[in-house]
Amino acid sequence: MRIAYQGESGAYSEAAALRFSSHAETLACESFEDVFAAVAGSKATHGILPIENSIGGSIHRNYDLLLEHEMPVVAEVLLQVSHNLLVYPGTTLADVKKVYSHPQGLAQCEGFLSSLKGVEIVATYDTAGSAKMIRDEGLKEAGAIASARAAEVFQLEVLAEGIQDFKENITRFILISKAASDPDKADKTMIVFTLPNTPGALFKALSVFALRDIDLTKLESRPVRGRAFEYLFYADIAVPRQDLQCTRALVHLAEFAKSMRTLGSYTSWKEKN
Amino acid sequence: MRIAYQGESGAYSEAAALRFSSHAETLACESFEDVFAAVAGSKATHGILPIENSIGGSIHRNYDLLLEHEMPVVAEVLLQVSHNLLVYPGTTLADVKKVYSHPQGLAQCEGFLSSLKGVEIVATYDTAGSAKMIRDEGLKEAGAIASARAAEVFQLEVLAEGIQDFKENITRFILISKAASDPDKADKTMIVFTLPNTPGALFKALSVFALRDIDLTKLESRPVRGRAFEYLFYADIAVPRQDLQCTRALVHLAEFAKSMRTLGSYTSWKEKN
Repeated sequence: MRIAYQGESGAYSEAAALRFSSHAETLACESFEDVFAAVAGSKATHGILPIENSIGGSIHRNYDLLLEHEMPVVAEVLLQVSHNLLVYPGTTLADVKKVYSHPQGLAQCEGFLSSLKGVEIVATYDTAGSAKMIRDEGLKEAGAIASARAAEVFQLEVLAEGIQDFKENITRFILISKAASDPDKADKTMIVFTLPNTPGALFKALSVFALRDIDLTKLESRPVRGRAFEYLFYADIAVPRQDLQCTRALVHLAEFAKSMRTLGSYTSWKEKN
Repeated sequence: MRIAYQGESGAYSEAAALRFSSHAETLACESFEDVFAAVAGSKATHGILPIENSIGGSIHRNYDLLLEHEMPVVAEVLLQVSHNLLVYPGTTLADVKKVYSHPQGLAQCEGFLSSLKGVEIVATYDTAGSAKMIRDEGLKEAGAIASARAAEVFQLEVLAEGIQDFKENITRFILISKAASDPDKADKTMIVFTLPNTPGALFKALSVFALRDIDLTKLESRPVRGRAFEYLFYADIAVPRQDLQCTRALVHLAEFAKSMRTLGSYTSWKEKN
């Protein structure tokens, strides 16, 4: 098993891949698109993507990519995220003039960042990549918000740990692959749909699950890009795709929905003890 | 009428305030909290706040502030947002080494920004404030993403206009005041609710509107901060609060909801010709 992930070594995505399978090889990719390309080109058997964070919500970019590609979701992984301020060894908090991180990392540490005075906050494409830049360029007046593992990988010092605003900060990752997951192991199905802009449309859409006692483990709405105040719905239902109840519910949903796509039927995450 | 807004002169919020009433005085405030304080302290009769963008979705911070304060929503304004790259007069695109703007502004111009090579993207607290900084500090190797009006106010040059990824980029603003709006003019009601984590909970919640033919003009879910994968729902319903149907629907909703708040009954935006 070889899992492609976006970011540098030390990225949260890499940690999630190793949490899924501690024996897996990992393959660093520059972008989320490259993760899809690595799986499509058989450079990796699986790809891992963050899809939702308990604070920031869904990662729309990855839903977009799932819709653009025909690559099923086969599993999920939950990972507790703990952010740290990493610096070049010897740098003190008073020396730090700039803090680099991914916009999500910055947003999740708003409280900590606003306590720093006269510091410039710089958005980058990667948490671990920010740590790498501090090491590579020997930046002594800067900090990066990244994982404790990134500190090890790039030999940086942890100046402050657990600096996220909320302790319960969990990211849900999904695994994609060229082949669908073993239908006997799948217990959840991920779908995306849009509805006509008519009264009661969402009520009708949800009725197809409620009438069959199918639980929704997630429902999130998102504005459709470029079409003002139209919404796309992301849903996860607690039933495998091959279940007859699921087939019936989705056929029923197709009666109301303007569009609908099944993104995969997959194995839900079970915490290992 | 005196409308408090967050940002510097030239901010989109100021433009929205003047769109609501071209004769209104405006009062610049440093933060959204200060907008609430200005209205509470009678320094302004109204406050204006961005609440939703057609690309980025809801502005959670302002929903949080509405929940923290007892200050009703009395009106809404829709504003077409057009972003521009502003520079100190004489600066060319090749000179630009840094681009400053609010994270939302940066996110909405991702396509344009990724076409610039070797440019550092810096997140700030304000679009117009970024323009002001370029003027005040005479920055000749930087650009700000802000409104065309900010270019006038701070005498900057527009180096590129309409640089947002999607042309249809609309922000919805709300007006708050100490007193509720004239009930005869209100035609929409804004509510926030949470639901127990049980199968069919949202279906039941939406039934209270569907059964009474009440249209939802918005429904968006958001993770509850610090509680993993629990959701808060923001809804706008096309019925005034004082309408008997509305009262019945909300009493009915209270049977299912873990919590519920009415944020105000208000006058919907009508485009002036």
